[in-house]
Amino acid sequence: MESPRDLLRRRHRLLGPNTPTFYREPVHIVRGRGEWLWDRDGNRYLDCYNNVPHVGHCHPRVVAAIAEQAARLNTHTRYLHADILDYVERLTERFADPLASAMLVCSGSEANDVALRMARATTGRTGIIATDNTYHGNTDLISQLGSRTTPIGGYAPWVRHVPSPMGTRTADGEITADESSLFADFVQSAIGSLEEDGHGIAALIVCPYFANEGFPSLEKGFLDETAARVRKAGGLVIADEVQPGFGRLGSDFWGHQRLGFQPDIVTLGKPMANGHPVAGVVTSQEIMAEFRNAIPYFNTFGGNPVAVSAAAATLDVLDREGLVPRAQETGRYALDRLRAIEASHGAIRAARGAGLFLGAELVDAQGAPDRVLAGLLPDAMKRNGVLLNVTGRHRNILKIRPPMSIDKSGIDILCDTLMRVLDELT
Amino acid sequence: MESPRDLLRRRHRLLGPNTPTFYREPVHIVRGRGEWLWDRDGNRYLDCYNNVPHVGHCHPRVVAAIAEQAARLNTHTRYLHADILDYVERLTERFADPLASAMLVCSGSEANDVALRMARATTGRTGIIATDNTYHGNTDLISQLGSRTTPIGGYAPWVRHVPSPMGTRTADGEITADESSLFADFVQSAIGSLEEDGHGIAALIVCPYFANEGFPSLEKGFLDETAARVRKAGGLVIADEVQPGFGRLGSDFWGHQRLGFQPDIVTLGKPMANGHPVAGVVTSQEIMAEFRNAIPYFNTFGGNPVAVSAAAATLDVLDREGLVPRAQETGRYALDRLRAIEASHGAIRAARGAGLFLGAELVDAQGAPDRVLAGLLPDAMKRNGVLLNVTGRHRNILKIRPPMSIDKSGIDILCDTLMRVLDELT
Repeated sequence: MESPRDLLRRRHRLLGPNTPTFYREPVHIVRGRGEWLWDRDGNRYLDCYNNVPHVGHCHPRVVAAIAEQAARLNTHTRYLHADILDYVERLTERFADPLASAMLVCSGSEANDVALRMARATTGRTGIIATDNTYHGNTDLISQLGSRTTPIGGYAPWVRHVPSPMGTRTADGEITADESSLFADFVQSAIGSLEEDGHGIAALIVCPYFANEGFPSLEKGFLDETAARVRKAGGLVIADEVQPGFGRLGSDFWGHQRLGFQPDIVTLGKPMANGHPVAGVVTSQEIMAEFRNAIPYFNTFGGNPVAVSAAAATLDVLDREGLVPRAQETGRYALDRLRAIEASHGAIRAARGAGLFLGAELVDAQGAPDRVLAGLLPDAMKRNGVLLNVTGRHRNILKIRPPMSIDKSGIDILCDTLMRVLDELT
Repeated sequence: MESPRDLLRRRHRLLGPNTPTFYREPVHIVRGRGEWLWDRDGNRYLDCYNNVPHVGHCHPRVVAAIAEQAARLNTHTRYLHADILDYVERLTERFADPLASAMLVCSGSEANDVALRMARATTGRTGIIATDNTYHGNTDLISQLGSRTTPIGGYAPWVRHVPSPMGTRTADGEITADESSLFADFVQSAIGSLEEDGHGIAALIVCPYFANEGFPSLEKGFLDETAARVRKAGGLVIADEVQPGFGRLGSDFWGHQRLGFQPDIVTLGKPMANGHPVAGVVTSQEIMAEFRNAIPYFNTFGGNPVAVSAAAATLDVLDREGLVPRAQETGRYALDRLRAIEASHGAIRAARGAGLFLGAELVDAQGAPDRVLAGLLPDAMKRNGVLLNVTGRHRNILKIRPPMSIDKSGIDILCDTLMRVLDELT
């Protein structure tokens, strides 16, 4: 059997250098089921990281839907097909008016690429604001929103990055209301700069959970003032629900609902069809018409019958297995356990999250981000049979985001292993 | 049952206006197999248009590969997996050196979006040249290459569109060598303009079959002078094989091989996995490294285990069923029959093509493009049970591009129907 080293060499040759992998010693996964993954040596891992297999790896209902539709028909939306309409009806029912129309594409990147152009077509302006520690995808346009790597060709003059919210908690665990105004002020300043340079503001795009920013704890209404200022300047608000969407947060089906604001455009991706390449853009009929009348957009694979079957089956499973309320309950249990670890381990601070999107900061004795520990912990957890990772500006925030099928016994395995590994490493 | 009119109304409401469909009375397809499609009323259509179901609609081997892998594992390339490496090895074996590495993505648009940035990262320049009657995809960046619709926000200063080759035949059926030099001159002039404006040339991107341009008959070596001039100016040549690739042309596996030139970057899409959302970029290890060292590109669904299984099964079927040589033979038979129709019907001229990518011009009595006939013919063919369409600058060139599984009896149905419909319409 090919060794991991040989596989890595072959990867380097065939896929190129710098093709990202997880872990210093990448894992060779060959099988998955529910929240479990197996490597080629038969070792089992509890998946506490992947949100793409949203209702569980290889869920039989989603697999059957894909297999049946692939055997029946897989064309495209230039022919009429009822399934895509039925699906979009079911999907848009989960949004407040006027978000009642949708476009299906293949990836979150494609969705965000369309969303920014929808905002530009609607507003007639070009300026875009994103946070300074985010990721919204990999097309040329969307690479402008990332702040970790300079896009090929450099940054465009129409983009502004504003400081990410920190969600600093007061002593009693509450968020200071000031941060909401502070974020609105940053956005206002970026609007001013875009207007001064003649771009104006087309859109603010944010993940409503600020997932890559380290999902700071933010109060409901946090974005209200910001959204009002963006709209006053004639811009739209885009919520990228690729990470928090489809019920992951437990309390609400969408991250923007949890934060209590209404976006103009919503983009969807990863968990939408449990791993089948499906993504989407949901917006009002007016904004959709502005875009579709500006360019005759067609996406060959987007919304094809198999894609729609996979996406519909994923919704079916979420509903029939009651996974959203269950995520809330399991997530509460997990957060309690994380807070108990925080109480007993100095290396863990500010345990937080919602539903099955949880984490905590890894800090040193002075309370500063512990990058060394954060660098060691994911590999140590992996060696102990649990997959997770770190995120945030300092890459020191534990990112725990298992398939929605995980139960309390899975959370116990995760937390028991985390305690053991923290003991080993600290 | 919902009427087509009600379906169209629901589409308009849920997907937006101007969502493109084929045919004035769009067809409601519910089932496919091989080169056959069935509508919801049980009517059967011979599919002479769709290249996405490359080895035939719902090919059981591809369906089984998707179903089996979807039930086993569907993660992503951040974990090690041997299948993607085995596939990329098989794929790149079909290219001449140094095209030995590949990146897998979800759509031809994503592939071309990456390819242009590869060229920019490698050359340090930004200018891009495309033809003036083409389509390479739908991202913001790639929408700049299309000439039919102004991109949202207008054209960028770094793009130039050169006149598409016409492939005008001389009396004895040969192409005048002049057109090759003429095209090279147009490209040279665009290079000069890009250099004058400080962009320089990063890449020329062409479909090596000039499919959307109406696939003019071009001699081998047509692009040699052009490619030499692009390279002399420091640019790269990108071949978009989304339409001619994977053996469709019969004589060669790739369109650029048929035209006899070596591109620096090749992009792949639609037929790659018989309808599963898979696309790719093939290039040298050097160019891949320039890109991957410039930005840490990761594509969540790109090259996942199910995508790779679908793509590998498509290659399996092509090879085991000998579909490429068969496409050459069936295509020759089809071209002979089209030329016989041309000889007997004044409305058909310049029948042409290669393998199973064929067509002919629809012309009026003066030999000018007959847009009226071209507007009527696809719907009339559809009513008679054959799906095809028109393309080219004047939308008067028949585009015949059936699944590779079609045989001579299918060609006979196509050609007999075409003769009958031409008799009816002219």
